[in-house]
Amino acid sequence: MLLLHLSDVDEASWARAFAEALAPYPVVRRGDDFDPKDIRYIFVWKPKPDAFDGLTNLKAVLSLGAGVDALLKHPKLPDAPIVRFVDADLSQRMSDYVVAHVTMHHRQFSRFRDDQKARRWSQYYPPAAGETTVGIMGMGVLGQDAVTRLRPLGFDLRSWSRTPKAMEGVEGFAGDQQFDAFLAGTDILVNLLPLTPQTTGILNRKTFAKLRRDRLAGGPVIINAARGGHQREADIVAALSDGTLGAASLDVFEVEPLPPDSPLWDQNNCYITPHIAAISNEASGVRYFSRALMRHEAGEALPNVVDRSRGY
Amino acid sequence: MLLLHLSDVDEASWARAFAEALAPYPVVRRGDDFDPKDIRYIFVWKPKPDAFDGLTNLKAVLSLGAGVDALLKHPKLPDAPIVRFVDADLSQRMSDYVVAHVTMHHRQFSRFRDDQKARRWSQYYPPAAGETTVGIMGMGVLGQDAVTRLRPLGFDLRSWSRTPKAMEGVEGFAGDQQFDAFLAGTDILVNLLPLTPQTTGILNRKTFAKLRRDRLAGGPVIINAARGGHQREADIVAALSDGTLGAASLDVFEVEPLPPDSPLWDQNNCYITPHIAAISNEASGVRYFSRALMRHEAGEALPNVVDRSRGY
Repeated sequence: MLLLHLSDVDEASWARAFAEALAPYPVVRRGDDFDPKDIRYIFVWKPKPDAFDGLTNLKAVLSLGAGVDALLKHPKLPDAPIVRFVDADLSQRMSDYVVAHVTMHHRQFSRFRDDQKARRWSQYYPPAAGETTVGIMGMGVLGQDAVTRLRPLGFDLRSWSRTPKAMEGVEGFAGDQQFDAFLAGTDILVNLLPLTPQTTGILNRKTFAKLRRDRLAGGPVIINAARGGHQREADIVAALSDGTLGAASLDVFEVEPLPPDSPLWDQNNCYITPHIAAISNEASGVRYFSRALMRHEAGEALPNVVDRSRGY
Repeated sequence: MLLLHLSDVDEASWARAFAEALAPYPVVRRGDDFDPKDIRYIFVWKPKPDAFDGLTNLKAVLSLGAGVDALLKHPKLPDAPIVRFVDADLSQRMSDYVVAHVTMHHRQFSRFRDDQKARRWSQYYPPAAGETTVGIMGMGVLGQDAVTRLRPLGFDLRSWSRTPKAMEGVEGFAGDQQFDAFLAGTDILVNLLPLTPQTTGILNRKTFAKLRRDRLAGGPVIINAARGGHQREADIVAALSDGTLGAASLDVFEVEPLPPDSPLWDQNNCYITPHIAAISNEASGVRYFSRALMRHEAGEALPNVVDRSRGY
């Protein structure tokens, strides 16, 4: 039996879709009449404190969303394997966001916007893509997809990850030891890391100060499409104000929704989107998790199981 | 002997670079001491009315810039073959501009900018790239390069050109008869056409009204990186005001520099850049034209000769 436990989304719609995909396998929601001991799988999004109570026979926790950092902090998270969502549609949307913001900053959007406001015709020729280095932090499924989109555009690419990852056309850096060298040649820093104790707050003043300063007019740029916990917003405001950063694109925030009194809203050269870079699509989510459940029931291994020791 | 005749750029710098690349072949500028009958090649950019006077032994006119529409209107243009600039670096820069503006509009930049101004957290998920159709007008070197950059991003692509052009992953339309069908499925219209009597004013109210309206939130978008003569600016202002167009990115204008009193400057959702989408790079320009000249002197054919009957 599959139990759905989803907050902040249309759980009824997901339940209908799962029931149809899995029939005759039973699908229930909180409030339905069932025995918790019959629940073998739970599909969660932002689970409440009592979400897992009484589920003593769980075979797996199925987690909507690409990141599991919040789920791993659930005080009553059971010991069952956690399956996270890996999906071509979600990767595509994330790369759509990354490419749009990388290219916007590369083409000096802020400068031309300011010129337009002043009715100023001031010719400035941005460097060609190949003269601009995009540094991608995180080389999981999302980081690798971003590479496949940015590479044909001609950008110079480098990556940084916990362990070395080789990818054609990308200069790879790994671990704490190579972090500074990675930053020293990066003009546009894209964060697609998982949120772990090691990566919390990695987008801070010290990191910004190590980025390359002499290539992009206006200064280096950061783009955060991963988690608000990666960034120190007070540092971003200060860095945008004193020129340490030329611009920032932020889709995620320390507190969401971003509070109305956050100084980020008014920050010139900060481009805010309300955590919409990528959404977990219902159709592809139901397809992915239904297949994982049915194959597991037939004796196959679960896909994309979270390694709790590394945190993703 | 090669004569340089360049306006609005650093002619002395180009002359030094050509002299170095062609040595010992003689390179001269206006005002130097030479016999006009000795000039076999002239390298021009925005030639003045007397540019070609006395040049009775010209073997070719070498034209900086990808478009030759203005040159073809020169009242004293000699009958020699015109070589236009075709260059990977120029194509790359033009595609940089096109991709940056296509992706910005696809990701609803204007909407999120307005939300940010109002400190409004309003989640809206843009469609995936594959659900958005980019229609490219003009399938010459620049249009084809744009396709190779946009295709890996996952956009649905279609093209329109004077004569049919087949390209993998692009739905091709050609000629006046298929123009309306091309527009009817286009969400983002990119103009990379040569400017000819047939294409003058093609970006007008009637064209805008035929674009697809129900896909992109905010309405269809135009991007003009070709020539100001392609667009009717009064129509663009009206279409942006009444919602026929959701947004426009314009790098070129009917009169350049764009006059300070143009209503385009203040138009919400009009993104103005001062004719900087692509520049003819001196290093690659000198390389390209020096090679063409030397090979022609050695008896080979000239590359990329303009067909005056079609106008490009």
